[in-house]
Amino acid sequence: MQNLFPKQPVITLSAGPVAAYPRVLQAMSGPVHYDYDTYFQTFYEAVSRKLARALKTDQIPLILHYEPAVGLEAASASLIGADDVVLNLASGVYGKGFGYWAARTAKAVHEVEVPYNDSITADQVAEALRNRPETTVVSMVHHDTPSGTINSAREIGKVVRDHGALLLIDAVSSFGGMDIHPGDCFADIFVTGPSKCLGGSPGLTTIAVSERAWQHIEANPATPRASVLSLLDWKNAWRKEEGFPYTPSVSEVNGLDAVLDQYLDEGPEKVWQRHALTSSACRAGIKAMGLSLWAAREEIASPTTTAVAVPEGMSDEEILAVTRKRFGVVFSRGRGDTLEKLIRIGHMGPVAEPSYAIIAVTALGGALREMGHKADVAAGVEACMAVIAAQAD
Amino acid sequence: MQNLFPKQPVITLSAGPVAAYPRVLQAMSGPVHYDYDTYFQTFYEAVSRKLARALKTDQIPLILHYEPAVGLEAASASLIGADDVVLNLASGVYGKGFGYWAARTAKAVHEVEVPYNDSITADQVAEALRNRPETTVVSMVHHDTPSGTINSAREIGKVVRDHGALLLIDAVSSFGGMDIHPGDCFADIFVTGPSKCLGGSPGLTTIAVSERAWQHIEANPATPRASVLSLLDWKNAWRKEEGFPYTPSVSEVNGLDAVLDQYLDEGPEKVWQRHALTSSACRAGIKAMGLSLWAAREEIASPTTTAVAVPEGMSDEEILAVTRKRFGVVFSRGRGDTLEKLIRIGHMGPVAEPSYAIIAVTALGGALREMGHKADVAAGVEACMAVIAAQAD
Amino acid sequence: MQNLFPKQPVITLSAGPVAAYPRVLQAMSGPVHYDYDTYFQTFYEAVSRKLARALKTDQIPLILHYEPAVGLEAASASLIGADDVVLNLASGVYGKGFGYWAARTAKAVHEVEVPYNDSITADQVAEALRNRPETTVVSMVHHDTPSGTINSAREIGKVVRDHGALLLIDAVSSFGGMDIHPGDCFADIFVTGPSKCLGGSPGLTTIAVSERAWQHIEANPATPRASVLSLLDWKNAWRKEEGFPYTPSVSEVNGLDAVLDQYLDEGPEKVWQRHALTSSACRAGIKAMGLSLWAAREEIASPTTTAVAVPEGMSDEEILAVTRKRFGVVFSRGRGDTLEKLIRIGHMGPVAEPSYAIIAVTALGGALREMGHKADVAAGVEACMAVIAAQAD
Amino acid sequence: MQNLFPKQPVITLSAGPVAAYPRVLQAMSGPVHYDYDTYFQTFYEAVSRKLARALKTDQIPLILHYEPAVGLEAASASLIGADDVVLNLASGVYGKGFGYWAARTAKAVHEVEVPYNDSITADQVAEALRNRPETTVVSMVHHDTPSGTINSAREIGKVVRDHGALLLIDAVSSFGGMDIHPGDCFADIFVTGPSKCLGGSPGLTTIAVSERAWQHIEANPATPRASVLSLLDWKNAWRKEEGFPYTPSVSEVNGLDAVLDQYLDEGPEKVWQRHALTSSACRAGIKAMGLSLWAAREEIASPTTTAVAVPEGMSDEEILAVTRKRFGVVFSRGRGDTLEKLIRIGHMGPVAEPSYAIIAVTALGGALREMGHKADVAAGVEACMAVIAAQAD
Repeated sequence: MQNLFPKQPVITLSAGPVAAYPRVLQAMSGPVHYDYDTYFQTFYEAVSRKLARALKTDQIPLILHYEPAVGLEAASASLIGADDVVLNLASGVYGKGFGYWAARTAKAVHEVEVPYNDSITADQVAEALRNRPETTVVSMVHHDTPSGTINSAREIGKVVRDHGALLLIDAVSSFGGMDIHPGDCFADIFVTGPSKCLGGSPGLTTIAVSERAWQHIEANPATPRASVLSLLDWKNAWRKEEGFPYTPSVSEVNGLDAVLDQYLDEGPEKVWQRHALTSSACRAGIKAMGLSLWAAREEIASPTTTAVAVPEGMSDEEILAVTRKRFGVVFSRGRGDTLEKLIRIGHMGPVAEPSYAIIAVTALGGALREMGHKADVAAGVEACMAVIAAQAD
Repeated sequence: MQNLFPKQPVITLSAGPVAAYPRVLQAMSGPVHYDYDTYFQTFYEAVSRKLARALKTDQIPLILHYEPAVGLEAASASLIGADDVVLNLASGVYGKGFGYWAARTAKAVHEVEVPYNDSITADQVAEALRNRPETTVVSMVHHDTPSGTINSAREIGKVVRDHGALLLIDAVSSFGGMDIHPGDCFADIFVTGPSKCLGGSPGLTTIAVSERAWQHIEANPATPRASVLSLLDWKNAWRKEEGFPYTPSVSEVNGLDAVLDQYLDEGPEKVWQRHALTSSACRAGIKAMGLSLWAAREEIASPTTTAVAVPEGMSDEEILAVTRKRFGVVFSRGRGDTLEKLIRIGHMGPVAEPSYAIIAVTALGGALREMGHKADVAAGVEACMAVIAAQAD
Repeated sequence: MQNLFPKQPVITLSAGPVAAYPRVLQAMSGPVHYDYDTYFQTFYEAVSRKLARALKTDQIPLILHYEPAVGLEAASASLIGADDVVLNLASGVYGKGFGYWAARTAKAVHEVEVPYNDSITADQVAEALRNRPETTVVSMVHHDTPSGTINSAREIGKVVRDHGALLLIDAVSSFGGMDIHPGDCFADIFVTGPSKCLGGSPGLTTIAVSERAWQHIEANPATPRASVLSLLDWKNAWRKEEGFPYTPSVSEVNGLDAVLDQYLDEGPEKVWQRHALTSSACRAGIKAMGLSLWAAREEIASPTTTAVAVPEGMSDEEILAVTRKRFGVVFSRGRGDTLEKLIRIGHMGPVAEPSYAIIAVTALGGALREMGHKADVAAGVEACMAVIAAQAD
Repeated sequence: MQNLFPKQPVITLSAGPVAAYPRVLQAMSGPVHYDYDTYFQTFYEAVSRKLARALKTDQIPLILHYEPAVGLEAASASLIGADDVVLNLASGVYGKGFGYWAARTAKAVHEVEVPYNDSITADQVAEALRNRPETTVVSMVHHDTPSGTINSAREIGKVVRDHGALLLIDAVSSFGGMDIHPGDCFADIFVTGPSKCLGGSPGLTTIAVSERAWQHIEANPATPRASVLSLLDWKNAWRKEEGFPYTPSVSEVNGLDAVLDQYLDEGPEKVWQRHALTSSACRAGIKAMGLSLWAAREEIASPTTTAVAVPEGMSDEEILAVTRKRFGVVFSRGRGDTLEKLIRIGHMGPVAEPSYAIIAVTALGGALREMGHKADVAAGVEACMAVIAAQAD
């Protein structure tokens, strides 16, 4: 039966889930220990502490046993109460979407929204907070994956902290691929996960929660308890004495441990540098080939995903069908409002390596040509190579 | 650092999560495919159909990407609306617990409750339905794991169907270890998962939903959408055209595929037979050793978990510490109301083999002796062996 | 400590061992069964029969538990006796090397030798056999890996069979990557292994032995017994009744099973086609970039390895250090007489995919440039792409 | 097809290959790196050095890429030249067998032979050396696995060193399960491997060679070169500058690395203690059950294998068929002269845990009973338990 399946992809350059590092896959095949056994409990605490090291937090972050979209829903439901006024920053589909969750429990939600190929400035946030000083929570997506664009978390974080509101950041597809941590951007809730830049498998959310945020959550009478949406249920789950509110995904925790080893052993700076170089080479190649980046300005293009505007009159789906068939290369389409408008080339985890920028340019260029669109692949590759060559040792 | 950890257990005889089959662990190390790629989508559909075969359902069951406790919360939230009157059957901690979830959205919840070493009869259910004919939903736990006892799903299911209410069954720790399927017991929602009797890893819920239940859910104005609690979001996720409401846990799906192959290739009857024989040998050994089963009557003792009453004046925690230290054997404690009162010996998946009944008897007996309690281990082992020997080929 | 290691390669395009298919790696983590247990014996027979299917032989081929270089030594020692006159065909380092093994036990060895960038014709073989009609064994390497060149096994095989001598073929790095089987070329001993074109791990040899060859071996009084060099010890090892002369490499057999499934499930024709397309694109790119193929004529260049002449005055070692450092790409150097003269780009198993031809061209071209050598990478990539595009569906 | 296979064993208590530790299986699924790449070469050196640590040698031991029976053949062929007079110690089938290899190249072989349920004393060796003072090499098997008996390597080693001959020791099934290292017993060649007490997969030999032995080998004009039988080819293979004489079994080396980590991280003393306790409990159980140990005296019974005499008139094969069918437990039969006379219960690697002694006793006792033989299983289990209980913390 297996051979009636479509052929497996040769190279996956998606915006996540991404191909996992070999070390992670090996760890996933480790024993499934009983969650109440002392070995697993000790291991769980060790992984939680390792996670704190990666996130550079003093407090032990939470490991939640579902993917980060759920983690964001849970964070919203847990943090945002009936007295909260939320400023939601929407520079893309995910940012916009968060607002709907926030609205479920908030007193009010107001937004700064920009076109989905642009990003939000600290000034815009400052102004919004001046207009609605009663704002208690600000929510933002650091890298709005469906657009491949970055909001400047550090600057915005400073503005929010100065104002005094709590800041919730979705850093799911940026953390691990660039220099961003909760402390860098005054995030009170910082949501990320192993299956994007860290090269793990999807199935977990990792969340850093500040002491201020815990106080807010604990003071929220409607914060969920005995529920998948509860952060509070898991606050001390890493402690042996506590026990887990429900069964953790043992194999995913095995994988997370390896994900963190991979990241910390290679060295975070080196990992970020790989992501930066690969995306930079990729963007150069895309432009030289005669295509347009989706991002309004290259400075806001993510180092972990390159969004390319679909040439006029062409179908993203058909393009991707050709890159897959001819080159075995898989890219991502857009989502929601960006669907059909852009193609996303992921540079995350093990494929954040310059050779894959070349693969991306040639596969995309080759597909466009096959469909009758002019694409200067030679120029694209040369531009890629120039970026790679220019890199100092 | 690894060697500062406690020693890993030698043999895990827990009530789940359980040690996974080797085949499953191998599958867990398979590639993490991009969820929107055609290969993964085809694979996901194939796994979903294989699951239907295992569950003997015509409709494609759901795969949800968190463990079954969450699956039960989601099922409750999705199914039970403001007009529903729920009869909750509580013969144990899990049954009781479900009632709290049901109460969040139901118009009213009434219960049949029995002591947690007993089980509920079809007559009791019939009477409760006669008393409250407006009941629209009945919820029950087939095997209430914290008690190791079985409710007679077939008989109760018949009564509920005759009445017309929808029936939600938690078969998490019974399915795969004994002959029970949604159709056998007229279940409209039948919740199970891979990490108990099927010998998989925790991290997924599998749910069979009847056409009647879908209609009820779709008619429920408060059924969650765009939420981790939504069943409806996932109804057609197995279809390529649909796409997933959020990222599935790719590696866990790889594991589920192997779980189902393991079960179907070995042959369900043979798997059930292994569970039955092992538990039967274990109970014989426990009794012969001079200990008491927790279950009020042996007929209601689960074939997948043997709950043993903690001898008077002894501490379950200390007993388990000795079985682990001296024999490397891990058992489960009770939960909630059964905590400290019983010890649970799991017979699930790869350890549903008679040799492990002997291990359980000797480790438990040996620990009791070491703590000064009389236990006739020799008699226990002989009783075990007699059951094993009596088995026809 | 792990992080004091050099960085792991990003993409390995070696002439073998090659990166294994994921399916094979998963199988390698399977249980180590006891070799005398009935399960493993049944499995071993099944793998042996599957191997026969892949090799298209009626007789069950041997699985030997060391890599193919040892397999060739063993085949030589087993087959060639004190009465044998051997014609050894030497078109490369491996062909030449076999002659030394043959000389250890043969009455006499005579050779056809050609420059190591060329191949041997059937006419040359016919003439050599006419000159030495007493020749009883002919030995040849189908793909002399250190040169990346192919001898025409079918034509030569016909000549040898017409003459009546036994034919021993080293098809280690060709089988699985092109259409060649023992029966196609009248091979009496056909040596291959899983870690080249089949994308497995190194550690096994697979040998097809004809009935004629077995008779010759059995008639050889000096054929090794109770020795690692004995083929005869293993003749019937696949039969349960026999038992193994020494312990088989259980995990490697697990891997071989997956290797064969991978090959047979994908379909051999498709696998060969991938190898052909990738090498063809690669050669086009290499030439367009201004480099020279090592092979005297492109027709004799192997579809599984492209050997590129090292530009005058340059060091192969330095070039490869740059491809690895800048692009993470690993190639092979030459061996023996071809060392320092050529660079080998492997197209074997999972990397026999056209995208890797592009990677090879850009990494090699980029490295040459960085070292000051002119390389028209743009032209190279365009030539690659043209071959890929020209392929009919 | 898989399900037409016999059922996989539940618990393997063989004399090797044994079930591997989970950590080893995970490592086996790691990437297959190219052997000439700098990463693998660095890794290979690191594993070689780790092996030196485990063997407590100053010199880097060899890793050879086939199982230890081949390693012994190679050691014999490499070390023993035409001027060597060999004293071969034969207390079992493997010891006897080594003499045949030695005789292939030695000037003369003389032997001390004792019944295969006994062991050889240092006095016997001293006397043999006095009788043949020209002896240059002594060969012995530390644990003759087909008999489950131990020769006193330390005392014999001292006698041999005092005489001045070289000592070759087969420690394949003792190293890692008890306190024995090359330096402890003045071994010049010490052959072992990962798939017995270390709980790895079969496919490698590890050999420690003393400086004296290297000098002897280098002075042996007939020592094999360019051959699988050559030790010298591999002498410096761990050095990057050297390169491998043929392709190493990459995945097996990945496994060996994990094997050594497992051993060193747990702590060798603890590992030996587990083996000692398990075998001691097993022997007590066997005797109490009314069966006889094969070993003439319990002091010479191996801590890594318990050989049990087959009761008169019974068939070992039938007994093992019942233990497997009824209990899923696999034991080993004898070999050669011990075949049909004894049953071997392995205590190696992950199953060197007291619970498995109980399993062994009950499975063997249960099978005997089923076949009509009286076996006091209760007494056997109680005797086992008494040994376990007596162990100080």
